[in-house]
Amino acid sequence: MSETDMKLVVVGAAGRMGQTLIRIVHQTAGVRLHAAIERSNSPFLGRDAGELAGLGPIGVPVTDKPLEAFVEAEGVLDFTAPAASVEFAGLAAQARIVHIVGTTGCSADDEAKIRAAARHARVVKSGNMSLGVNLLGVLTEKAARALGPADWDIEVVEMHHKHKVDAPSGTALLIGEAAAKGRGIDLADHSVRVRDGHTGPRPQGTIGFATLRGGSVIGEHSVILAGEGELVTLSHSATDRSIFARGAVTAALWARSQKPGFYSMLDVLGLN
Amino acid sequence: MSETDMKLVVVGAAGRMGQTLIRIVHQTAGVRLHAAIERSNSPFLGRDAGELAGLGPIGVPVTDKPLEAFVEAEGVLDFTAPAASVEFAGLAAQARIVHIVGTTGCSADDEAKIRAAARHARVVKSGNMSLGVNLLGVLTEKAARALGPADWDIEVVEMHHKHKVDAPSGTALLIGEAAAKGRGIDLADHSVRVRDGHTGPRPQGTIGFATLRGGSVIGEHSVILAGEGELVTLSHSATDRSIFARGAVTAALWARSQKPGFYSMLDVLGLN
Amino acid sequence: MSETDMKLVVVGAAGRMGQTLIRIVHQTAGVRLHAAIERSNSPFLGRDAGELAGLGPIGVPVTDKPLEAFVEAEGVLDFTAPAASVEFAGLAAQARIVHIVGTTGCSADDEAKIRAAARHARVVKSGNMSLGVNLLGVLTEKAARALGPADWDIEVVEMHHKHKVDAPSGTALLIGEAAAKGRGIDLADHSVRVRDGHTGPRPQGTIGFATLRGGSVIGEHSVILAGEGELVTLSHSATDRSIFARGAVTAALWARSQKPGFYSMLDVLGLN
Amino acid sequence: MSETDMKLVVVGAAGRMGQTLIRIVHQTAGVRLHAAIERSNSPFLGRDAGELAGLGPIGVPVTDKPLEAFVEAEGVLDFTAPAASVEFAGLAAQARIVHIVGTTGCSADDEAKIRAAARHARVVKSGNMSLGVNLLGVLTEKAARALGPADWDIEVVEMHHKHKVDAPSGTALLIGEAAAKGRGIDLADHSVRVRDGHTGPRPQGTIGFATLRGGSVIGEHSVILAGEGELVTLSHSATDRSIFARGAVTAALWARSQKPGFYSMLDVLGLN
Repeated sequence: MSETDMKLVVVGAAGRMGQTLIRIVHQTAGVRLHAAIERSNSPFLGRDAGELAGLGPIGVPVTDKPLEAFVEAEGVLDFTAPAASVEFAGLAAQARIVHIVGTTGCSADDEAKIRAAARHARVVKSGNMSLGVNLLGVLTEKAARALGPADWDIEVVEMHHKHKVDAPSGTALLIGEAAAKGRGIDLADHSVRVRDGHTGPRPQGTIGFATLRGGSVIGEHSVILAGEGELVTLSHSATDRSIFARGAVTAALWARSQKPGFYSMLDVLGLN
Repeated sequence: MSETDMKLVVVGAAGRMGQTLIRIVHQTAGVRLHAAIERSNSPFLGRDAGELAGLGPIGVPVTDKPLEAFVEAEGVLDFTAPAASVEFAGLAAQARIVHIVGTTGCSADDEAKIRAAARHARVVKSGNMSLGVNLLGVLTEKAARALGPADWDIEVVEMHHKHKVDAPSGTALLIGEAAAKGRGIDLADHSVRVRDGHTGPRPQGTIGFATLRGGSVIGEHSVILAGEGELVTLSHSATDRSIFARGAVTAALWARSQKPGFYSMLDVLGLN
Repeated sequence: MSETDMKLVVVGAAGRMGQTLIRIVHQTAGVRLHAAIERSNSPFLGRDAGELAGLGPIGVPVTDKPLEAFVEAEGVLDFTAPAASVEFAGLAAQARIVHIVGTTGCSADDEAKIRAAARHARVVKSGNMSLGVNLLGVLTEKAARALGPADWDIEVVEMHHKHKVDAPSGTALLIGEAAAKGRGIDLADHSVRVRDGHTGPRPQGTIGFATLRGGSVIGEHSVILAGEGELVTLSHSATDRSIFARGAVTAALWARSQKPGFYSMLDVLGLN
Repeated sequence: MSETDMKLVVVGAAGRMGQTLIRIVHQTAGVRLHAAIERSNSPFLGRDAGELAGLGPIGVPVTDKPLEAFVEAEGVLDFTAPAASVEFAGLAAQARIVHIVGTTGCSADDEAKIRAAARHARVVKSGNMSLGVNLLGVLTEKAARALGPADWDIEVVEMHHKHKVDAPSGTALLIGEAAAKGRGIDLADHSVRVRDGHTGPRPQGTIGFATLRGGSVIGEHSVILAGEGELVTLSHSATDRSIFARGAVTAALWARSQKPGFYSMLDVLGLN
């Protein structure tokens, strides 16, 4: 730990994602855990954040005072819930620090409030904080634009563990959207979600989906562009759930030297 | 070409598969084309079989006299139609030669007649003459038996070209049947053919299918056995339609030294 | 936990593998942790085994009394060192229980002693306790036998994390050995370990190796059988180091109902 | 065939690539074969180009008069040799048509002459005319730039048929160059070409290569970016040698509406 380490606050510290964030901050050079925040009614208030995360004691007790924490910190890592994230956005703006938002399910109104806070905070918000998945989306859009529908067919295939209850995965749909954007089409009008029995030939210009389920697979996604005599395949494989926490820390370090504003992981990756 | 080359007859010589057989026989050491047979009303009678197959003239004219051809030959390669194959089986039995049958769609009655002929001929019959696909089926059965349904989930995924009109492919279903056999279950009762929307968790003991379509892909098949923390994947990739013809020639050379009887590609591969 | 749970002892309980074994025993239906053993000079004696393994207290203190533990138990899980495993083998034989040995590096003499103990114990010993890897070895041998060297080329490719210091991996070599056994050849005489610059055409009958390193990959192994126009690929992917502990527990449950003897994971998988 | 079809000349018409070009031009909508050129001493002069290419007669005899052909044509497809391509570039400039150059091995001087001709001709020149491979290079550069060397390791793996005599493939090296460019490093100083025995841990910032050989594989290339807990893999698979001819025709159709100039396949793909 050094004087120049970026001081980070983890909110939702006692949850599964909060604990992962605490472990990753602890392991990563250039950052350190400044505070760990939970709700006022949390049974974990006062407990050591390192103990909660399975690291052993690290001298950072869980508190319910975000603003106090934020004013002395440089960034906040937030995978909580929409209402909480809107509130943290306001506090981060007051403290003029970095706010990394991995929270999903925000309404348009929530989104607007977080964007408003970005006039004073440096906000990075993304539905998937994995660097690899964000890159895959960008590359998919580029590939779909370069290889047109007359000669190239696009298929998205994903595999997840046996407990997953919906199909295709949200990330598969994001990749499908990226492909549709590259093609300048609307995904809903061009997607083929199932194939069984007599399907007829593949309709030109469609984007197909296929879903595999089994074992403990964390997340595999591939997009295949199939032409006459050649295939281009772009894949992402997640082998550890910590990649979302790692992406958040990477985003925080990147945002530290940016101007206030609303950013995405594509900015972090230098892809915008 | 040498004196000890196995003399082979191609029936259905002017069809697409017949032409491929002629080319593969021509290219393969240890065999040679003895005769090329078509129906009596074929416009190709009298034409040079090599010309038809794009090889240039090879001195073997197409004829409509199978028995004359068979009595001087050692084997016949037959990817025709059920009625024709039943007739050729009788003639091959008379000539006491090898009969390789890649014909599909035979009724139980056709099958019985071909098996009867195998008292005198050495018949190898299979719905898919590719060595690799037959091996994949055997390995799948073995894997499905070793890795039980409590801990391992089985998925079959295939990809074919954009012109294919049905799903899953016949070969994917064969592999699914092999997996079901290994598990001692009935495939129809345990297969999951599509997944879309809210599927709920994966039902234990099922065999899932997923289908991809695009470009000019000749045939890709994988079976995935997914356990906690590990995956076993068995795959076959066909990159050339000639593999079925190659398998037929391999079967003919193998059968040359067998006793009369009814064999499958598993016998040829030494897997029975 | 039920009365019929198999009572298991973990030896080397404070090591990384010991802790994983404790966690997996704790999670797995049908088994329970009876005792946790460390050396007499271990600083962890008296500590709760569940605490050590990050599970929280489970009421099983670490002791240095293996025989006392074994006589009341049904099996011992042992990923320690050769000398210790030889000693545990003797004690397991006295107690007439199951002894699962994942220890590597045993000399011929160690091996002989462990086999001698198997007159009274039910020993399962393997250099790799993963069910999937053991299956891959068996399938590779079978495939290499069925698809001969005149027409099919065998390649083994593996990927591991960036910290691994040797190449190819031990498991890649095991798979190469399985392929060589299937072909009836000696691996050392037929392996191609590197390719760079002008290599000339691939020598027929060789087994090639290729090694990839990067990131945090736990272990990916594939064997490719490449023929004219088709490929057969058999792969194993490990995504969690716990698979070795899981395999050991599976072996223990299997061995519980066997006669005394010396077994391998192939027996557990029903593949011998 | 329509009045608006682009009229193309194939040079080197009797060679293997020339024949493939003739077949692809024949099959592709929007283009037609205007002339087929060979050297003055070619034994194929006067032969029908379609016959040579296995299409049957198409009424286009092979001639040795390129300029006569070019002045009535709109483009020339050229996979010949450096000296010939330099000459054809001059003639294409005189005729002010499109010149697609797939010729490899040009010296700096040859290159300069071809570029000079591009003042009047629309030249597209590339060492690999496959759309997919060119796209893979662009995506690789982008990915290597976004995912830095501190956290992401780059590996390039390729597989080709058993007859290939060098390793790694030229295309693998091109992809390695693209990765190095993305990283801002020199490939020669950072590539790891072989791994065998005690290698030590992977040196940070290197680009690794691995080579597989077997069967009839036309060309498989993958670049893997391996981070902590995730992998991004970008792959190209060629299943038909005609993809280079297809790429050339695509380039010709694209160039038809461009201004005179010197272009690459990246311009054709809209990736520059």
